[in-house]
Amino acid sequence: MSDSDAQDGANPDRHPLDVIFRPRGVAVVGVSTQPGPDGRMGGNFLNALLEQGYDRDHALYAVNPKMSEVRGVTCYPSVLDIPDPLDHVISQIPSDGVQELVEHCIQRGVRSLHFFTAGLSETGEEELIQQERELVERARAAGMRLIGPNCMGLYAPGPGLAFNSESPTEEGNVFLLSQSGANATGIINGLGARGLRFSKGVSYGNAADLKAHDFFDYALHDPQTELVVAYIEGPRDGRAFFEALKRLARVKPTIVLKGGITEDGARAARSHTGSLAGSIDVFDALCRQAGAMRVRTLDDLLDLAVAATTELRHTRGRNVTLVGAGGGYAVLSSDQMAMEGLTVPPLPDEVQDRLHEFIPIAGTSVRNPVDANFGRDHPMDFRSDTGLTRRAFDLIAGSPTTDLIFTTVGTRWHPGQDHSRDARRHQLELTADELDRIAQEHHVPIALILREANIEDAGQPAYERGVGVFPTLERAARAVATLLEWRRRREGLPELFER
Amino acid sequence: MSDSDAQDGANPDRHPLDVIFRPRGVAVVGVSTQPGPDGRMGGNFLNALLEQGYDRDHALYAVNPKMSEVRGVTCYPSVLDIPDPLDHVISQIPSDGVQELVEHCIQRGVRSLHFFTAGLSETGEEELIQQERELVERARAAGMRLIGPNCMGLYAPGPGLAFNSESPTEEGNVFLLSQSGANATGIINGLGARGLRFSKGVSYGNAADLKAHDFFDYALHDPQTELVVAYIEGPRDGRAFFEALKRLARVKPTIVLKGGITEDGARAARSHTGSLAGSIDVFDALCRQAGAMRVRTLDDLLDLAVAATTELRHTRGRNVTLVGAGGGYAVLSSDQMAMEGLTVPPLPDEVQDRLHEFIPIAGTSVRNPVDANFGRDHPMDFRSDTGLTRRAFDLIAGSPTTDLIFTTVGTRWHPGQDHSRDARRHQLELTADELDRIAQEHHVPIALILREANIEDAGQPAYERGVGVFPTLERAARAVATLLEWRRRREGLPELFER
Repeated sequence: MSDSDAQDGANPDRHPLDVIFRPRGVAVVGVSTQPGPDGRMGGNFLNALLEQGYDRDHALYAVNPKMSEVRGVTCYPSVLDIPDPLDHVISQIPSDGVQELVEHCIQRGVRSLHFFTAGLSETGEEELIQQERELVERARAAGMRLIGPNCMGLYAPGPGLAFNSESPTEEGNVFLLSQSGANATGIINGLGARGLRFSKGVSYGNAADLKAHDFFDYALHDPQTELVVAYIEGPRDGRAFFEALKRLARVKPTIVLKGGITEDGARAARSHTGSLAGSIDVFDALCRQAGAMRVRTLDDLLDLAVAATTELRHTRGRNVTLVGAGGGYAVLSSDQMAMEGLTVPPLPDEVQDRLHEFIPIAGTSVRNPVDANFGRDHPMDFRSDTGLTRRAFDLIAGSPTTDLIFTTVGTRWHPGQDHSRDARRHQLELTADELDRIAQEHHVPIALILREANIEDAGQPAYERGVGVFPTLERAARAVATLLEWRRRREGLPELFER
Repeated sequence: MSDSDAQDGANPDRHPLDVIFRPRGVAVVGVSTQPGPDGRMGGNFLNALLEQGYDRDHALYAVNPKMSEVRGVTCYPSVLDIPDPLDHVISQIPSDGVQELVEHCIQRGVRSLHFFTAGLSETGEEELIQQERELVERARAAGMRLIGPNCMGLYAPGPGLAFNSESPTEEGNVFLLSQSGANATGIINGLGARGLRFSKGVSYGNAADLKAHDFFDYALHDPQTELVVAYIEGPRDGRAFFEALKRLARVKPTIVLKGGITEDGARAARSHTGSLAGSIDVFDALCRQAGAMRVRTLDDLLDLAVAATTELRHTRGRNVTLVGAGGGYAVLSSDQMAMEGLTVPPLPDEVQDRLHEFIPIAGTSVRNPVDANFGRDHPMDFRSDTGLTRRAFDLIAGSPTTDLIFTTVGTRWHPGQDHSRDARRHQLELTADELDRIAQEHHVPIALILREANIEDAGQPAYERGVGVFPTLERAARAVATLLEWRRRREGLPELFER
C-alpha cells in the first residue's frame, strides 16, 4: 500500500489513527538556537527524524522565528508559514505558548499535534488541568488529535518517525505504547538489542486526548502488529481500557507493565503523568480476565516479549534440560529453574549412557544439567569440526524428558582466541544457526544465555535465526513460566500461537 | 609476621590451618604434556600460580615423568624427587593414582594435599566412597590435611596462591569458602569487579577431610578477615557446621548461599559434591539463629557483600532518596524500592523549594525521586564547574527524610564526549570522590548504580573511595533491606559495624 493510499481519510479500511503514524509532513516547533551537549543544533526530535531518514521521502520543517535553517532543514517563523504538506506537529515550546500553537495548527489543517511540552495537568494545579482540558476540546472540535502532553510521541520506523537517534530503523511486528518516554526508550533499546523490531510505537504521557484504549484499538487493527507491549501508569478511563484490552488480547498477545503499583510508585506516577494508580490487585485481576500478560518489571517485559515471539512460545511443558557450565553453577541453576516454576528432570539412563560415550570425564555430569565439557580442555563448541557438540545436542533434544533447552554453549571466548567484534559475532551466528537447526528438527525450543554485554552484539543475529537470547537463566525461566501459565489460563480461547 | 614465623607449627598463636594458606613450596602433580585451548602448556593451576607470582618468593614445582620442564618450572618424575621446601601439593591426576600420591606426599612431609582429581565419593558408588574415606584416614594419621576431592583448592593473594589466572592479586578482607569451583570463580570475579579483595579463599568440593566448619573456625581467627562469604551445598556435619557458624557470625558478618534448596537443585548437588541437601527451612532457621545472613542467589551474595563492606552498612533506616532519571523510570524505581522493603518518602517542601531554585524545568520532579536535570540539555554531572550538582546533593543528603541515597548521576556518557576507557574511568573516579565527600559530610551512605558493562571499569575505583556500586536499583535495594533486617534480628548481640 502506498503512502498516498494511507493518507486517504475516506478509505473505509484504514483505521482512523492510521494517518497519525503515516504523516506526509512533520514540523518541529521550538527548535533551540543553542547546540545541545553533543554539539549538534536542532535538539533531540529534529535530529532523530534526520537520522531515521524521515526527510528522505517526506517533508520535514522546523519552526523558530530566530533562524532560517537548522541542520539543512528550513526553519519558518510560524506554523502558518509552512508550505504543504503538513500533517503532524511536534511541540517543544514552553506551556505558555500552546494555546496559540493549537490555533495555528487547526488553521493549517494539521492532523495530529504532539506535545513534548510539559507543565500542564501533571502538575496537579487546577488552572493547568483546566487549560489542558480546553486544549483537547478545541482540538477535537476541529478534528485534530493530540498526543500527550508531556511525552516523546511517535515511533514508526516505516516512514522514519522517531524520538531517539539510535532506534532501530527496520520495521517489525511489535507495537509499543508507553505513558513514559524514558520507559519507551528503555523498551525500544532493550528489545532492539535482543533483535526485536517494531511496527509502531507511541509515548503518550498525560493522555489528555488519545489514550491507551485508542492505541489498543489501533494495534488490534494494524496488520503489521503481532505482539503488543504496554507501559501504563493509570488508565484515564478504566472501563474503556479493559474493554479495549480484552478485544485486543483475544487476538494478539499483549504484555502489560503497570507503574505505580506501590504507594511510593503511585506517588511518583501522580507527579509524572498525573495518573491515579488504583488498586493493583484489581488491575491484575482485570488483566487476567482480559487475557493479557501482566509483568512486574521492565526486564520481565523484555524477556516475555522475546519468549512470545520466538519458538519458545510453542514450548510443550515445563521440563527444561540445561546444557552449559557444571558443578555449583548447575546446582544454583537447577534451584532457579524450580523457583521460577520449571523443572530439571534427569535424562533417561539410555541418553546418559550415550552421552557418556563421548563425555567420559569424571566430575562431568550428563544427568541434567549437562556439563558442557568433553574433557578438561575441550568444551562443547559448534566451531569444532568433530561434530560431537551437534551429536550431544541431538541426543538431548531427542530425549522425551526435554520440552525445551537453555544453553550457554558456543557463547564463550577463550584466552588466545580472536576476540574481535566480528569474530565474536561470527561465532554467535554459527551457534545460532546450529541451535536453530536442532530446535527445528526436534521441535524443541532453545534459549541462548548470553551475558548482557554480549547481547548488544549478538541479540539480533540470534533472534533472526529464531533463537531467543536472555542475559540470565533465571530471566529465561521466568519468561517461559509466565508464558506457560498464560497459555493455561487461555484454554478455551482461540490459540494465538499457531505454528 | 614473616613467612618463616608463619610456618612455625609450634607457635601457639597461629591457627593450625594457617600453614595451608602460607605454603613454603607448592607442586602441581599431573601437568599435561599437551597445550591447552589457549596454546599454553602446564594447565590451569600452574599458569594461575605463575601469573599470580607465587614463584617470585616461593618454590614452585611440576610433576610429570614425561617432561623435565614446563613454562620455566622444573618438572620432576615424582613428588619423591622434589627438593625442599614442599608444603602443598595440587593433584590433577586421575583418581586411580591418588592412593600412591598420598603415600608419596606423606613420605615427603607434605602438609596439605589438594585434589582437583574427581571421581570419588560424589559418584555415589560405595567402593569409591570407601576409598575416599581410607585416603582421609591415612592422611590424618600422618598429620597431613586433604582439600577436596573434586574442587579448585586455595586462593591466597598474599603468597600468590590461586586457581585462576585473572583473580585479583591484591590482598583484602573477605574470606571465601565454596564447595564449588565454578561458584568460587563467580564470587572472586564478581566481587573483584566491584572492588572487593580477599584475605583467603578455598573451593573445597567433597569436603572429605577439611569441612566448612574448619574454615569458619580459621576465618574467625584470621586477623586479615572481616567478612565471610560461603557457598554451601550440604554441610557434612550439621551440628559442627552451625556451631562454628554461630561462633563466627557473632564476631564477623557472614553471608551464606545454600545450593540445592529445591528438589531439582538438590539432585544436582548430589551428583556434584555428593551432598545431601536437607530441608531448606531448617537450614534457614539455623542460619538466622546463628546470626548469619542467608541469600538466595549468587547475585544477592555479591550485592550484600558490597553493602556489608561499604558505608551502606551504617544506613540509619529505610528512607531512600533516588537521584537520577525521572519520569516512568522513577515510577518503576519507586515501585521496586517498596517491593524490596525500602521507602521513597517525599522531600520536605523547603528542600523541594530550594531545589526548584536551580531545577526550574516543567516536568522535572524534585519531590523524590529527584530527576537529575537542570534543564533539557543540562543533566546533573560533577564535571560541570557550576557547582550545582554538589549543591543539589548537599540539599538532598541534608534532608531529614534521607537515610541513604541511590543515584545514577555522573555515570552517563553523552554523544560527542570522549568515550575512551581512560576518560570513562576518570569521570567515575571524579563522581566517586564527590559522592564520598557528600556521604562523609552528611553521614548518609550513597550507592552508585552502574550498568553491568561499566562496573568492570569503575567498580574498583568507586569502592576504594567508599562508594558501593550495583548494576540495578533493585539489587541495591534488596542488599540494603537484607542488611537492615539482619541488623534488627541481631539486637542484643555485639554491634559488628562500629564506625
